[in-house]
Amino acid sequence: MQQKIEASLEKQGLMQTLGANITLVEEGKVIIECPFKEGLSQQNGYFHAGVMTSIVDSACGYAALTMMPPNAEVLTVEFKVNFLRGMKTEKVIAIGQVLKAGRTLTVCEGKVYEATGQKILANMTATMICMQ
Amino acid sequence: MQQKIEASLEKQGLMQTLGANITLVEEGKVIIECPFKEGLSQQNGYFHAGVMTSIVDSACGYAALTMMPPNAEVLTVEFKVNFLRGMKTEKVIAIGQVLKAGRTLTVCEGKVYEATGQKILANMTATMICMQ
Amino acid sequence: MQQKIEASLEKQGLMQTLGANITLVEEGKVIIECPFKEGLSQQNGYFHAGVMTSIVDSACGYAALTMMPPNAEVLTVEFKVNFLRGMKTEKVIAIGQVLKAGRTLTVCEGKVYEATGQKILANMTATMICMQ
Amino acid sequence: MQQKIEASLEKQGLMQTLGANITLVEEGKVIIECPFKEGLSQQNGYFHAGVMTSIVDSACGYAALTMMPPNAEVLTVEFKVNFLRGMKTEKVIAIGQVLKAGRTLTVCEGKVYEATGQKILANMTATMICMQ
Repeated sequence: MQQKIEASLEKQGLMQTLGANITLVEEGKVIIECPFKEGLSQQNGYFHAGVMTSIVDSACGYAALTMMPPNAEVLTVEFKVNFLRGMKTEKVIAIGQVLKAGRTLTVCEGKVYEATGQKILANMTATMICMQ
Repeated sequence: MQQKIEASLEKQGLMQTLGANITLVEEGKVIIECPFKEGLSQQNGYFHAGVMTSIVDSACGYAALTMMPPNAEVLTVEFKVNFLRGMKTEKVIAIGQVLKAGRTLTVCEGKVYEATGQKILANMTATMICMQ
Repeated sequence: MQQKIEASLEKQGLMQTLGANITLVEEGKVIIECPFKEGLSQQNGYFHAGVMTSIVDSACGYAALTMMPPNAEVLTVEFKVNFLRGMKTEKVIAIGQVLKAGRTLTVCEGKVYEATGQKILANMTATMICMQ
Repeated sequence: MQQKIEASLEKQGLMQTLGANITLVEEGKVIIECPFKEGLSQQNGYFHAGVMTSIVDSACGYAALTMMPPNAEVLTVEFKVNFLRGMKTEKVIAIGQVLKAGRTLTVCEGKVYEATGQKILANMTATMICMQ
């Protein structure tokens, strides 16, 4: 499963552009980290909301994928993100977890933390669909 | 206003990384376009959801900014995006519009279209806050 | 279709409790109205957010149903509502419209207006699922 | 605080109509329960999504209020709810908790469970605003 997910991440051009990498794959839980660089900033020098969203969306999608049948693919139906705090940090840590897995739809919770893992920066709820 | 917004966009490292550019600034409405390149794709070669989200978030934020006092800054409180259709397209067009402007909070609607402007790819509702 | 939808609304105990009634059914669009009474208020005497949400959720669900196969049923997967304005009004008018109809999922936009139809009180985006 | 919140709930006509009552008030956490009756159903005899939403919105709003200054009032800016499971149950239990308290905005997570508290029916993220 970890290999399948890492291979999928490598096919996502944006994840390469951002410099994201997977640090944990468990059943129902995936963690993706992304170090800071200038090209990921918003106007105050923080991580751009779009970067945090992209990474935690991937973490949620892959968390859902861990609970789907072997040949399934996952697509994002929708998500909602609250941005809780803006701050400079050398990396962001995005944790995606399955809240409720279903045959067609899976609902995930995602959280983005700064480098120490102590302060939450963003909170996502996402609906994923299983494509066979 | 257009100059202020273009200067702000240039300070956003991510918007440079993505290759986004502003094509319209009106009171309560901003359009941002982004041409396709490999580094913006997801695993099927479409625009990544995170790219569409980043661009339409900026369009909504700047649309809100056009209706705020001169020295205000805008931050995204939260947004929700539905992904309506995945397809290959040479660019995406993101339209942000103010639905309700308030002194503290402004609510915007954002829509992302493919290159011809006929098919909608994603729909956003965003809450923006005015920082003085 | 109008009969099917009115029969469904009558089976919803909550819609009877609220006093909601359907005033328009078109392909992809349904309008539901609800007159004010004390039992629908929040602490300031306005319509409670939960009432507006319930009614516009039904309007969106039925709008989706108009575009589904004859024997289908509709369920709400998720929705997001922004509350734009609080005010006293003798009734609310909820308009649900299909933004994108799909075989499994349909995305709708809902808007709630006060009695004159001029001021928007709430804005919904909803994802509906077709159950056969 | 518990008295202030119970007095506020009593002023909400809808909460009386639904038959909701507060069972816990702590700093940053409020629980509201609501027994089933016919007038709260949707077309399959389950609790209507609008009822669950109304109750968990109140639980989130009051959870936010516990962390605001003494004379503050709380209003819902927006919320998003995913409906995870439909089932018959004699009551619903709505738990609202503060995820991030701020001077102006407070973000809450809400969860709705069936009578035994073991199965989650709905999940909310809500943004609340402090009105002085």
